[in-house]
Amino acid sequence: MPTPYNEFIKHVRETGMIDATSSVLDWDAEVNMPENGLDQRAEQLSLLAALGHERRISPRLGEWLSKLEGKTEDEVQETNVREMRRAYDRAIKIPTALVERIAHVSTLAKESWAKARKESAFSKFVPHLKELLDLKRQVADAIGYKSERYDALLDEFEPGATAAEINTLFNSLRGPLSDFVKKLADAPKMPDVAILNRNFPIERQKLWSRQCAMLVGFDFNSGRIDVSTHPFCSGFGPGDVRLTTRYYEDFFSPSMFGTLHESGHGLYEQGLPREHVFTPRGQAASLGIHESQSRMWENMVGRSRPFWDRYYEQCRAVFHESLSDISIDRFYAAINAVSPSLIRVEADEVTYNLHIILRFEIERELLENRLKVEDLPEAWNAKIHQLLGVNPTNDAEGCLQDIHWSMAAFGYFPTYALGNLYAAQFFVAAKRDMPDLDDQFRRGEFSNLLGWLRKNIHQHGMRYRPADLVKNVTGSALSIEPFLKYVREKFSPIYGLQV
Amino acid sequence: MPTPYNEFIKHVRETGMIDATSSVLDWDAEVNMPENGLDQRAEQLSLLAALGHERRISPRLGEWLSKLEGKTEDEVQETNVREMRRAYDRAIKIPTALVERIAHVSTLAKESWAKARKESAFSKFVPHLKELLDLKRQVADAIGYKSERYDALLDEFEPGATAAEINTLFNSLRGPLSDFVKKLADAPKMPDVAILNRNFPIERQKLWSRQCAMLVGFDFNSGRIDVSTHPFCSGFGPGDVRLTTRYYEDFFSPSMFGTLHESGHGLYEQGLPREHVFTPRGQAASLGIHESQSRMWENMVGRSRPFWDRYYEQCRAVFHESLSDISIDRFYAAINAVSPSLIRVEADEVTYNLHIILRFEIERELLENRLKVEDLPEAWNAKIHQLLGVNPTNDAEGCLQDIHWSMAAFGYFPTYALGNLYAAQFFVAAKRDMPDLDDQFRRGEFSNLLGWLRKNIHQHGMRYRPADLVKNVTGSALSIEPFLKYVREKFSPIYGLQV
Repeated sequence: MPTPYNEFIKHVRETGMIDATSSVLDWDAEVNMPENGLDQRAEQLSLLAALGHERRISPRLGEWLSKLEGKTEDEVQETNVREMRRAYDRAIKIPTALVERIAHVSTLAKESWAKARKESAFSKFVPHLKELLDLKRQVADAIGYKSERYDALLDEFEPGATAAEINTLFNSLRGPLSDFVKKLADAPKMPDVAILNRNFPIERQKLWSRQCAMLVGFDFNSGRIDVSTHPFCSGFGPGDVRLTTRYYEDFFSPSMFGTLHESGHGLYEQGLPREHVFTPRGQAASLGIHESQSRMWENMVGRSRPFWDRYYEQCRAVFHESLSDISIDRFYAAINAVSPSLIRVEADEVTYNLHIILRFEIERELLENRLKVEDLPEAWNAKIHQLLGVNPTNDAEGCLQDIHWSMAAFGYFPTYALGNLYAAQFFVAAKRDMPDLDDQFRRGEFSNLLGWLRKNIHQHGMRYRPADLVKNVTGSALSIEPFLKYVREKFSPIYGLQV
Repeated sequence: MPTPYNEFIKHVRETGMIDATSSVLDWDAEVNMPENGLDQRAEQLSLLAALGHERRISPRLGEWLSKLEGKTEDEVQETNVREMRRAYDRAIKIPTALVERIAHVSTLAKESWAKARKESAFSKFVPHLKELLDLKRQVADAIGYKSERYDALLDEFEPGATAAEINTLFNSLRGPLSDFVKKLADAPKMPDVAILNRNFPIERQKLWSRQCAMLVGFDFNSGRIDVSTHPFCSGFGPGDVRLTTRYYEDFFSPSMFGTLHESGHGLYEQGLPREHVFTPRGQAASLGIHESQSRMWENMVGRSRPFWDRYYEQCRAVFHESLSDISIDRFYAAINAVSPSLIRVEADEVTYNLHIILRFEIERELLENRLKVEDLPEAWNAKIHQLLGVNPTNDAEGCLQDIHWSMAAFGYFPTYALGNLYAAQFFVAAKRDMPDLDDQFRRGEFSNLLGWLRKNIHQHGMRYRPADLVKNVTGSALSIEPFLKYVREKFSPIYGLQV
């Protein structure tokens, strides 16, 4: 006799399998697909999206949820019912016509954005951005929210988070962070970043990146690394996680740190509980928590002094033509150089969050109609000057730089900054539990950190909402202090400043 | 207002897209997937198979077919309705429980076969083979047939073909072919095949194979080549066709001729009409016709004297360490050596069909209970001795060598021989229409042959049943004569015999 929960979870698993199938097709399209496959692939992906949507709004799902709520037998059932309810409510509240309209408009908007960015002509993008904002307001209104529309959109990416909370965090972060960036700009010591632009043969970068992924614990029996234009990580389940990276002959950083970043995502995916694959209990808690894993391995491990104390000599041997005259101090400073810049994706650890604060504030004002789309470039330029002291010379290096808004992804950006804050706070907790972590890194041991993340974060899947997870793991609510302390203690010595 | 045909073809296209999605997942599993992805991938593929099956037996499909039959407006509609009727009738006649039972038993049978082959212990495979035969008899009975069960199974792979027709062809082929093989064995000249086992660096084989695919017209904007254990071709649509091949440092033939073979399949897939993708009108006519394309490009082009007149010097330059002392005559003879052997997949052009005749006759006797499973090894060994004069020393090199029966694929083998016969007959027709074809090959021109295949075969998809296609293209029904003439004229001079 199938129980209601068994019927429900079969439906949920099948929906998850359809999503994972889309992920395989997406990955293949980025990594392998010949150009003439595009049209057919797009059609297949639309069909799979429709099949998934059908299942997500199925009345039978609604009936199972009503039957099961309050009657779940353990935390696994509770998690799956809670998260499927959340997804179901979101899905049935948004009219199908609205979903289709957004898909249609954002296809056009992406084209228009690409053209506008190329020509740095914001006016071309204006009508599309206006319509997308209007459609996303309708989405927010359909879903409902307590205090502001932004919450309804944010919840898709960071369950339970609110714009007000994020605003409070960001308001307390922007001043101290901006001040610290200015302090570094006037510091007595300046890293020499040019050494990273020497010659680094791609074949050797490939081996080196692969080795870095292996030593932090990425399991190549459950994953692989390929090349794509924009690096990403896609988990089809804990047993099959695909990373991509990219290589530049004349730039050391992107491949190694990109690989470590994606490995961080990949370690999370590989650490999700296999028995719950294709269900919420077996999926990542949120985009912000996901980003905390990638940032921790990229920055707190891969750009740490203990890591390089262990591996610099080896790296120098691999790239001897370019590094033989470079001391570990110079190298370490170069890979950690801080420099206010115009482009988010090129930003360092310290300035990155300021780029996000800018986007969050502007998104919120746009959604609430406090900022008119026509006035966006001016508002952007004023804000980035205020936050980072830099001045875009055109909109391509200003408000047109990111693809996200053309894809209707409003409420997504804050998860990047949350990731950095979560990472710092998790890292403090990890060091509290393992005070010799730096020594472990100096011995090339990363398995205890990975074990700690597996036990405290990965294995729980969506069991806890991000805010609760942070409290459970670290003992307190998310705060900016661990992050501020981390950047001050790490970057002050590099720049010859007192902490 | 959607017409019934439009509703019908939307359903058909979506079913085709689900099948193409399975193909992508299958290809990825062979080419890319890490080992721990297997369980999850198998689950996804089962789900997709079930989704496809649901659509293939949907009562709405039955209603549309009844409405549309006799009322189609053009040959495209006619083809799609006819072929979907064929698939629908097959699908609804086979009880779901039987389909599931076969899937289950063949999973076990594959394991059992692999073990039995490894240990060369046929008795271990006996119970599984018995059950599969019994289940396939039930399938044949459910589908129905005019004269014998074999027809019902064969029809899945070669629409419209019958065991009786094939038996007639094979009966007239076996004597002359067997005699010719014996004549070659006693011939005055013998090719020196050992030269193909010299050293051929894999990196250069890769470039060479890729160049061969390009020069016969395989379009890398609509396809790619990768490596897998067993070479195959998978078309996800004419814009995205994936070939695989394999490389041996000490064996020249597998990569180049394997690539040309799969390129032949790939050229067919790339030549199918793009506007009919995901529907029968846009799919290959049959497995036999598919095989005719691969065999033509592999053997009648790639192993032809005109091809090597054009390309041997270039090939010798690429592999100069191993070929510099080898004349074109010696090389050409080596790649065309004929040698009766035990293993089908290693068989040359001449003996290959004898391996198929053996399998066809045995399958038919097994299905009709004229041969008991326990007596299979004995029957096999007697037949292969009679046909090829060779004697297996164990069942691994005898009746356990092929995986097909463990996968319940009875009625599949004849398509390989049909492919050879079709290819020879098509090639005669192509030379009738283009008498200077050899000269074209000697100039490295293959585009006219490809254009001829596109026009006469590829563009028609499933418009014509294989038997009709052969008549349309060549002017007469399929016959063994073109094949016999081809092998006699090609191989006699190589072996120093009068034609």
